[in-house]
Amino acid sequence: MDLHQLTRELHVRNNTKLVMYVGDGLGGLPQSPGGLTELETARTPNLDALAKAGVLGSSIPVCPGISPGSGPGHLGLFGYDPLQYKIGRGALEATGIGFELRPGDVAIRANFCTLDSQGNISDRRAGRIATAESAPLAVRLRGVNIPGVQVFVEPVKEHRFVIVLRGEGLAGNIQDTDPQRTGVPPLDPVPNDSQSQRAADVAKEFVRQARGLLASEPKANGLTLRGFSGKPQLPSYEDVYGLKAAAIAVYPMYKGLARLVGMEIVGQAQSLDEQLTVLEQNWQKYDFFFIHFKYTDSTGEDGNFAAKVTRTEEFDAGVPRIMALKPDVLIVTGDHSTPSMLASHSWHPVPTLLVAPNCRTDACERFGETECLRGGLGQFKAKYLMSLALANANRLGKFGA
Amino acid sequence: MDLHQLTRELHVRNNTKLVMYVGDGLGGLPQSPGGLTELETARTPNLDALAKAGVLGSSIPVCPGISPGSGPGHLGLFGYDPLQYKIGRGALEATGIGFELRPGDVAIRANFCTLDSQGNISDRRAGRIATAESAPLAVRLRGVNIPGVQVFVEPVKEHRFVIVLRGEGLAGNIQDTDPQRTGVPPLDPVPNDSQSQRAADVAKEFVRQARGLLASEPKANGLTLRGFSGKPQLPSYEDVYGLKAAAIAVYPMYKGLARLVGMEIVGQAQSLDEQLTVLEQNWQKYDFFFIHFKYTDSTGEDGNFAAKVTRTEEFDAGVPRIMALKPDVLIVTGDHSTPSMLASHSWHPVPTLLVAPNCRTDACERFGETECLRGGLGQFKAKYLMSLALANANRLGKFGA
Repeated sequence: MDLHQLTRELHVRNNTKLVMYVGDGLGGLPQSPGGLTELETARTPNLDALAKAGVLGSSIPVCPGISPGSGPGHLGLFGYDPLQYKIGRGALEATGIGFELRPGDVAIRANFCTLDSQGNISDRRAGRIATAESAPLAVRLRGVNIPGVQVFVEPVKEHRFVIVLRGEGLAGNIQDTDPQRTGVPPLDPVPNDSQSQRAADVAKEFVRQARGLLASEPKANGLTLRGFSGKPQLPSYEDVYGLKAAAIAVYPMYKGLARLVGMEIVGQAQSLDEQLTVLEQNWQKYDFFFIHFKYTDSTGEDGNFAAKVTRTEEFDAGVPRIMALKPDVLIVTGDHSTPSMLASHSWHPVPTLLVAPNCRTDACERFGETECLRGGLGQFKAKYLMSLALANANRLGKFGA
Repeated sequence: MDLHQLTRELHVRNNTKLVMYVGDGLGGLPQSPGGLTELETARTPNLDALAKAGVLGSSIPVCPGISPGSGPGHLGLFGYDPLQYKIGRGALEATGIGFELRPGDVAIRANFCTLDSQGNISDRRAGRIATAESAPLAVRLRGVNIPGVQVFVEPVKEHRFVIVLRGEGLAGNIQDTDPQRTGVPPLDPVPNDSQSQRAADVAKEFVRQARGLLASEPKANGLTLRGFSGKPQLPSYEDVYGLKAAAIAVYPMYKGLARLVGMEIVGQAQSLDEQLTVLEQNWQKYDFFFIHFKYTDSTGEDGNFAAKVTRTEEFDAGVPRIMALKPDVLIVTGDHSTPSMLASHSWHPVPTLLVAPNCRTDACERFGETECLRGGLGQFKAKYLMSLALANANRLGKFGA
């Protein structure tokens, strides 16, 4: 019996409000062993007050030693085992630019490449063509016309773009066409099963027409297709938790991930201040609010310790407006660690905090990686956060008699 | 998706060196509640220095409350879920005496027993016959001749010996012949499936000839067969971790277990000093080194607290020669606890230490059971040690985008 079968059976509804406040890549590392992490260096009076009032712990996004991408990281926070629920690369790329996939769609990551006069790939990334040049080319490919199939083409960045095929009888179990080397032509899209035959044929015809439309381009005169995938099948927050959930995010990737689990995307905030205004304006309309703050991750990815400290203080400064709404359960956490010392996502457990009237608080006084080690939540897999949240909101009945 | 599927997909290769330094049965208990364990009593300045530099935790070999044997204990350390990967008793017994099983072999634990004039068992262990008496009898059974089958017979200890059958079409899904009581004859070997029919027939013929060869023996004139099993199918370290691994052990059991996961057995060390010399001599040739120290377990099994303390200090004294090689990741742990107060393997979590540049050190100052409770690794299943080791060696890519 999986966790969702439990919560699906046991959840009850009430009027409580739950907030999950996510600092992307929140966890960090000290600049030298034994020192303070970014979070421990930052002045975080509001988070520290919550640490005193609540219960702390360390969240393991997937399992020990595994550094997750944004997809698995957020699925874990949302309570979906990232090893059970996979998001295909094409679907994640489409999600990341805010494309709303429908069941039956096939999403594809596409790369512009350079072909020589024999049709062999001479540059797999079309000389890392600038976005300003490549975006109009992606838009030009909307001119591809395939009867019975709706074709969407969306620019992404540099040589990358997304194709989504929509129509009857399409499935995405199809091999990449990127041969992963130069001096050979792109491969044909080969289906791995008979249900994917039509989508493979459509993809081949897309490439044929695209080659015509790009023929005169000096760099981006060819394309390769990767990560064919359909919309992931995820049960919804409403179904598994009985929660009407809202996502308040700035970046398309996080809106997209939230949409996959049935959250509604509310507002068009461009800053944390605006996100909190959206939260206030929608407080009566939803049970659960996911608020995503990006910059603790991006500064970590930049390897900028001081900037991550500053962004963490900005994240802290958002707390009072949330608390003023008196949420019944507030969780503060991250989808993974992004230590600025590594300038990348990492496997380290993520400092996590839960505040609720019956949370059984612990002796922790501050919010930080070391303090979280003696917290009452211990070390736990991220996928258990939602059952903890529901329990603390009195939204889970007893299991068994 | 299991952990090995993850590590198989995500691992990358680099030039890092990883060392797993195992004190068998390392965990212990105090002589009276609230006192110090063997490890906490021992003077361990080198391990304490590592505890300051690294991150501590408590390893759970199988799951809470389960006391593992050497097989599951080591499989866990090596990252193979001991509940998923089982080693048959015959295969473990053969492994334990250094017999190198091949795929298709059937290994059997055999006991000498005493039969009365009616052929009924009067003593299931042949009066616990001394090894000096039983070993020549086991060797005598090499005289059994079965066409088309190679038969190996190896003495073990007292009434126990090992039989390995090698030949075409053998399989080991066969019931024990020990009726578990006296006053009745040994059972015939009964196959549980048709693939095991031939091996059962061969075993029956083995018993018939063996009875003839033992007929004049006063005590050991019969035998029972148990734990029929083939070579366990374990994916290799090379396959699942991309590691060229060496095992440096003194005792056959640990060499055998390491061989099952594809480690190479290097050197013929007879002491820890010699093991460390082998380590130094082979440092350039491998990525991963498993170093096994037996005596923390054997003194625990003997119920000798003071001796276990002394052996723990000896284990500690081996650390500087390892550190002089500057391993990128060093793990110090045990395969289970063997508290001298219990004189047996136990279920207690095992003190564990990991040192690596980005391990996110904790506040721990010494290496011991109580200190490990506030360590940054928390309590974790042993099977996750290898993914942690790979992550700390920068040998694991990101999971998902």
